[in-house]
Amino acid sequence: MSNLQHALYGAVEAGGTKFVCALGEPGGRLYAQASFPTTTPVETLACVADFFVEAQMQHGPVVAVGIGSFGPVHVRPGSAQYGRIARTPKLRWEGVDMLGEIARAAGAPAAIDTDVNIALLGEARHGAGVGHDDVVYVTVGTGIGAGVLANDKIVYGFAHPEVGHVHVPKAAEDAAFAGVCAFHADRCVEGLASGPALQARWGTGAENLPPQHPAWTLQAHYLAALCVNLLVTCAPKRIILGGGVMAQAHLFPRVRASVRELLNGYLDFAAYGIELDDLVVPAQLGGRAGVIGALELAHDFAAAR
Amino acid sequence: MSNLQHALYGAVEAGGTKFVCALGEPGGRLYAQASFPTTTPVETLACVADFFVEAQMQHGPVVAVGIGSFGPVHVRPGSAQYGRIARTPKLRWEGVDMLGEIARAAGAPAAIDTDVNIALLGEARHGAGVGHDDVVYVTVGTGIGAGVLANDKIVYGFAHPEVGHVHVPKAAEDAAFAGVCAFHADRCVEGLASGPALQARWGTGAENLPPQHPAWTLQAHYLAALCVNLLVTCAPKRIILGGGVMAQAHLFPRVRASVRELLNGYLDFAAYGIELDDLVVPAQLGGRAGVIGALELAHDFAAAR
Repeated sequence: MSNLQHALYGAVEAGGTKFVCALGEPGGRLYAQASFPTTTPVETLACVADFFVEAQMQHGPVVAVGIGSFGPVHVRPGSAQYGRIARTPKLRWEGVDMLGEIARAAGAPAAIDTDVNIALLGEARHGAGVGHDDVVYVTVGTGIGAGVLANDKIVYGFAHPEVGHVHVPKAAEDAAFAGVCAFHADRCVEGLASGPALQARWGTGAENLPPQHPAWTLQAHYLAALCVNLLVTCAPKRIILGGGVMAQAHLFPRVRASVRELLNGYLDFAAYGIELDDLVVPAQLGGRAGVIGALELAHDFAAAR
Repeated sequence: MSNLQHALYGAVEAGGTKFVCALGEPGGRLYAQASFPTTTPVETLACVADFFVEAQMQHGPVVAVGIGSFGPVHVRPGSAQYGRIARTPKLRWEGVDMLGEIARAAGAPAAIDTDVNIALLGEARHGAGVGHDDVVYVTVGTGIGAGVLANDKIVYGFAHPEVGHVHVPKAAEDAAFAGVCAFHADRCVEGLASGPALQARWGTGAENLPPQHPAWTLQAHYLAALCVNLLVTCAPKRIILGGGVMAQAHLFPRVRASVRELLNGYLDFAAYGIELDDLVVPAQLGGRAGVIGALELAHDFAAAR
């Protein structure tokens, strides 16, 4: 390719409830976008095919397609199962070759990653992480998930990491709460601070808890414990917090204050030229992070071929 | 350089009690090695200079020198302070330009990293991590430190991470113990499972506690909690445990059993083709990891110039 930067790419955000498809330039203009509900693989993938046929007729062919998929999906390039949906309660999607099907539907080579890693790429390159190559993106909602970028590369290891299951100390005032994680009960952050944990502890959803409710002090504490563990493990220059629960903007100053309290003087931020206000930050791209990140993935994939 | 692989390199392991210098080939033969006590910068660095003058006269010039240094040392290449010792109780060494001084002493360009990252490089390339590019090396002794390799690159972020301060849930049977971390008391692994924590909890050192002592069940539990947090954050293919406390070989099967218990079915190792016995493993290089890793650092540094 003579000029991959200004070439056209495809993006698919394959979510559990809807698929979003787009055609555009990485970090630039979107020429076409559409979304449709996630039903059966046959039906949904037919919509993807229709979108790419029409969008490419109108705007020209895409060089490659980037996919951010609901999980569990095999995302380690080179693995035999790469691009396939693993065991899932969405039985109709189990074993579906998401990557192969979408590549065929778009008539272009494709690359795939988890929805959260795609959002990480979007936020790191065009949102709250711009200018940094060590960034963590955390989404706090029904579950707690995260993507880790170190040295400008997504960290996979043998799986894609699931930071929501980081074990953290329980707060003394929270002793009675049993936690909601199916695996780790009250030992991990997802069990203590996900949307369902808030619901279970307080008997109502995050959206109904006013800012002065004690729920938020505890919530900030647990998110801060997650941040501390990320800081001492990867020392990211940005921890970007997004997802439904983080719509509570008052949480950010509280999380930062709790990070400072928990670190208790450890990590001399000033010596590193780091301001905590710039370190723990809200996501900037909101619902657009997936499509923007998927275009980045498509670009990287094409550039590496 | 026409053949960096068979060129000669220098290694300096700058420890708090002794310096080890070597001249050799990465992953291959050591042609010269010497060690001397860490005293004043002037005295100790004069010994380094003497070593390299003599060793290079005898065996030929080195292409570059790799240094693994006691901390705190600025290790982020490109930072203004790169290679300098930061604030430290070893007052005579504070502010010393370890990198510049050793480069001058050896008459060759040099690169520097922490002692634990150097041991990580050694173990990853020639020890317990061979063949893997996602590896964590943890040393459990007076403190708990770690180096993280992701996508075959050492993870720094804004600092070099200090995994010993990962916060973990406290074991119910350990409620009375106050912990020994100066920053985090009983909230982090260093406060709960370092050598001094063992000493404080049981009134005697690790070397005096027999394998059947309850100390080891608890120790395995906390080290497993650290492993779990590393697994869900980076999913390393090897977690290499070294350092004085890990000389207790009976700890390894216990740590693995505790990892399995804590994960409670989460992370389907079999689906990833992972055996826990191959995942949590002892260090293989012992005291040689530093020199072997420093030669690797020197080689990488020369190759990138």
